[in-house]
Amino acid sequence: MGFAYHREAARAGGLMRFFEDIEIGQRREVGSFTFTAEGIKKFAAEYDPQRFHLDEEEGRKSLFGGLTASGWHVAAVCMKLMVADGKRQAREAAARGEKIAVWGPSPGFRELRWLKPVLAGDTVSYASEVESLRSSEKRPEWGIVQARNTGTNQRGELVYSFLATAFVPRRNPGS
Amino acid sequence: MGFAYHREAARAGGLMRFFEDIEIGQRREVGSFTFTAEGIKKFAAEYDPQRFHLDEEEGRKSLFGGLTASGWHVAAVCMKLMVADGKRQAREAAARGEKIAVWGPSPGFRELRWLKPVLAGDTVSYASEVESLRSSEKRPEWGIVQARNTGTNQRGELVYSFLATAFVPRRNPGS
Repeated sequence: MGFAYHREAARAGGLMRFFEDIEIGQRREVGSFTFTAEGIKKFAAEYDPQRFHLDEEEGRKSLFGGLTASGWHVAAVCMKLMVADGKRQAREAAARGEKIAVWGPSPGFRELRWLKPVLAGDTVSYASEVESLRSSEKRPEWGIVQARNTGTNQRGELVYSFLATAFVPRRNPGS
Repeated sequence: MGFAYHREAARAGGLMRFFEDIEIGQRREVGSFTFTAEGIKKFAAEYDPQRFHLDEEEGRKSLFGGLTASGWHVAAVCMKLMVADGKRQAREAAARGEKIAVWGPSPGFRELRWLKPVLAGDTVSYASEVESLRSSEKRPEWGIVQARNTGTNQRGELVYSFLATAFVPRRNPGS
């Protein structure tokens, strides 16, 4: 769950940094995933059974020009890779003996966009980039981070994008 | 895929109405779905393997208070029910011998929100309500419809919401 990811980041393994450690423009490569025809059809059969997600020939006849992954599949794979990346970061931080930041709830996501079709055989590389940072006047122990999460295909084309907002704890509240 | 749903609505079975047939406030019940523990764990294992999505005890210990569906699962089920509803509407329109509107591309979704956790055993009822209508000056053959799609649990609590925008053809362009 979106807000769960942030709210329970320490348990789940999320972005472990404190607000003071975060800078605008920081970018993290989250991971890559190749959408196979089999995987596309399996997701679509359960959650998005439209013809161009289920059948190569129907995909070719569609505006997409090929068997196309459901946008919700593209989104779910993004989450999958973010959780895996968070767990990896948590293990690394623990190995270094570092204090881990427990991120707060996310007010939500904005501007979820599927910009180009993801076709069978495409590899999407997901990344997260910090867009803005601000203080929370009501809650001085938290900062607010807005990040743009994206997916880019093997041709360098942006295929997926959304804005995530999260409350991130300060290492030194009130400083 | 989000925009696919609209762009290819006639083939896939989408909302079959023309712009002139649509009014602000029109609401359609899309369908209901009960999230079982088994289904929650299956989706989470593949796409969102956080503890509170995978294990009842971890869910109880979390802020959610129980085994909780991934937000992306809640979103994917919404798509599933919208596709099924669209196919149903297409069949009904065809049976009445009606002309079917081919919806255009959607510029995207906005304000995707998971407002409350969806716990194992919860039943979510999805609906779509028209929020605004406007003309497209550049493309007089289309109107622009903004709809709020929601999920509400068996206690009447809103759990999921997003704003969808779509280009919808006019029955009589230029009139």
